Amino acid sequence: MPRARRTTRPEARREEILEAALELFAERGYRGASLALIAERVGLTQQGLLHYFPTKERLLVEVLALRDERDTAHLWPHGGLDALPAIVELNTQRRGMVQSYTVLSADSVTEDHPARDFFTGRYERLREAVAAMVREDPGVVLPEGMSAEDAAAMLIAVMDGLQLQWLLSGGDIDMTGVVRGALALLRRSP
Amino acid sequence: MPRARRTTRPEARREEILEAALELFAERGYRGASLALIAERVGLTQQGLLHYFPTKERLLVEVLALRDERDTAHLWPHGGLDALPAIVELNTQRRGMVQSYTVLSADSVTEDHPARDFFTGRYERLREAVAAMVREDPGVVLPEGMSAEDAAAMLIAVMDGLQLQWLLSGGDIDMTGVVRGALALLRRSP
Repeated sequence: MPRARRTTRPEARREEILEAALELFAERGYRGASLALIAERVGLTQQGLLHYFPTKERLLVEVLALRDERDTAHLWPHGGLDALPAIVELNTQRRGMVQSYTVLSADSVTEDHPARDFFTGRYERLREAVAAMVREDPGVVLPEGMSAEDAAAMLIAVMDGLQLQWLLSGGDIDMTGVVRGALALLRRSP
Repeated sequence: MPRARRTTRPEARREEILEAALELFAERGYRGASLALIAERVGLTQQGLLHYFPTKERLLVEVLALRDERDTAHLWPHGGLDALPAIVELNTQRRGMVQSYTVLSADSVTEDHPARDFFTGRYERLREAVAAMVREDPGVVLPEGMSAEDAAAMLIAVMDGLQLQWLLSGGDIDMTGVVRGALALLRRSP
């Protein structure tokens, strides 16, 4: 049963723990971020942390929900394909979020990872949403053999792959420009 | 000083340890794969393992060298842009290698990761090599505002991003077809 260790309200304390966990997962990955470290960052004992989140997996699930809520992916279905470079531009201002996404999504392909289903489902939905945007875009002309689903997988891959290059290059990659270029390629007719 | 714990020759034993480490890094990431686990997989004690590789970082560096040696990236400068879908097709037969690459490259952006410089340098060299291929390809027509370097960053991002989607979808993404599509887009003139 939750015991208040401080005067902080439980909801505020939960939020604080989620923030710290999101940061630490971005810094060290899921397996590298121990509950002890997360607890330390918010000034709790590990026992104290477990009052709020009974397992590390539970904490991860809630961190992903928080990330999703702050994420820009919900903007995707609106504004058509031109929303994509706009979202990428926003992401250049949110290095921590980009890093948490890159680290946790790749992490999730490792053995028995508790976020695997989360990311599998997320990519399925994203591909569907972007494929619909490709179909509805009046300027897009797909080359022979490329379906709207292929174009969607490609655009999402460009965005993800660029994030990795951008993080590794210390921000020296023009993510927005390259995504704009990918759209220009899809929109020119042969 | 190395003491032979078994009759296996030291080089054979080193190779065996590297194989096990490559597997375990792919399965659990760098921080999640302990030396104890790696030692266990080759039937050594952790002490025994340390005779061959004095630190976990040293082991990672040698694993990356092994991965690079087996990797197909050295094929990139040959055969021009059409080598890319050929390499991707090969990768669909090597899920373990793809997974180790996806996991370790994203891992490397976490705090103080010993493979960070390795991947930063690797992407710089890849972008240069692919940009040269883009420039030399007689069919490529870049849209206004897209440089050969941008196109290279895009193609590499497509390949990396697709690997993640492919791993998460259980192989249900046509990586080769989408990369071929990306080349077709670059090669059609407006």
